[in-house]
Amino acid sequence: MKSASRQSRYNHGMSHAPAVDFWFEFASTYSYPAAMRIAALAQGSGVAVRWRPFLLGPIFKAQGWDDSPFNIYPGKGRYMWRDLERICTPLDLPFRQPRPFPQNTLLAARVALVALAQDWGEDYCRAVYRAEFGEGRNVGEPSAIADILIALGQSAGAVIEQAQADTAKAALRAQTEQAQRLGIFGAPSFVTADGELFWGNDRLEAALAWAKR
Amino acid sequence: MKSASRQSRYNHGMSHAPAVDFWFEFASTYSYPAAMRIAALAQGSGVAVRWRPFLLGPIFKAQGWDDSPFNIYPGKGRYMWRDLERICTPLDLPFRQPRPFPQNTLLAARVALVALAQDWGEDYCRAVYRAEFGEGRNVGEPSAIADILIALGQSAGAVIEQAQADTAKAALRAQTEQAQRLGIFGAPSFVTADGELFWGNDRLEAALAWAKR
Repeated sequence: MKSASRQSRYNHGMSHAPAVDFWFEFASTYSYPAAMRIAALAQGSGVAVRWRPFLLGPIFKAQGWDDSPFNIYPGKGRYMWRDLERICTPLDLPFRQPRPFPQNTLLAARVALVALAQDWGEDYCRAVYRAEFGEGRNVGEPSAIADILIALGQSAGAVIEQAQADTAKAALRAQTEQAQRLGIFGAPSFVTADGELFWGNDRLEAALAWAKR
Repeated sequence: MKSASRQSRYNHGMSHAPAVDFWFEFASTYSYPAAMRIAALAQGSGVAVRWRPFLLGPIFKAQGWDDSPFNIYPGKGRYMWRDLERICTPLDLPFRQPRPFPQNTLLAARVALVALAQDWGEDYCRAVYRAEFGEGRNVGEPSAIADILIALGQSAGAVIEQAQADTAKAALRAQTEQAQRLGIFGAPSFVTADGELFWGNDRLEAALAWAKR
């Protein structure tokens, strides 16, 4: 499996370089600015980043939620949309509240695992976030994912077929289970090589600083 | 009522100066670093701060919670304690996890309303937070509040008697209802003169910057 071989290279070859695992879910609102910011910030501080897509659904379900907490608690939801807008503006990130919210990100995440085993994975992830939160597209629709793949010069049909194969499905399940074992309860989360957990776009800088200690 | 006359002075005399309302709850963990940081930061940026104690209990109850979300969701709770420790260390703020958690902050908040109508109110609030999260004391015990008042040179008996009078009780209820009307769902929260809401210790700087726009 490509993602496993990649993981193994990472663990063995870079174990002494500062590194952060970036755990993200495509439906997660605050993962959008984090995904758009992390590459430049990490490069600037000499920290390697491993992109780790996972699903929040099973983790929320274990907490008794069958929907986004931003829908379950409307006051928190209203605040979040406004807060996200305030965060995106100075970053020059386009922002549109996606409908529906949250979106079904199963296919998007499976494709991410395929993509991240190749050199266009991070571009793909950023393109998904831009489509969803910058353009308000529904990335739960396979056609939206296909459009993104085509724009990246990929063969959409072949990639989606690979993403729907049993190995990719199992890889995403395993990744989500690992997130749960790490104590991850929301996204984005950042985990340093020594196991320190940081939660939220607003903890990205702290996670990078910790990784460099 | 002292707090009302103070509020009226504030609204009429300073309506054009940058100002932020600092909404806090003594049981709120992230309100501790916010309370310790806000005076110097606000002074440095020329923003006036009005300290607004309130109770989260009724607001959490309206969301269906009868306990702190950090107890209801243990993973989130474990993370919060660690995160708070990481925040306090570089600020040189002593930190001890208080037991029990959360504490009963009804008396502490009523006394705060009395104190904030006088010139030692902010010192009192910081002393409560220091006792609770710096020394691990139970500020739900009237003796802890009395000790704090005595250390501030106040007549503990007289102040506590005033705080338990109907006017003080009604003032805290009104303040909590106002927080709810403002859309506040957690603490600390900051509200600017133009009604912009910021939630969390990590939004303090953003709130001050907004107030100065």
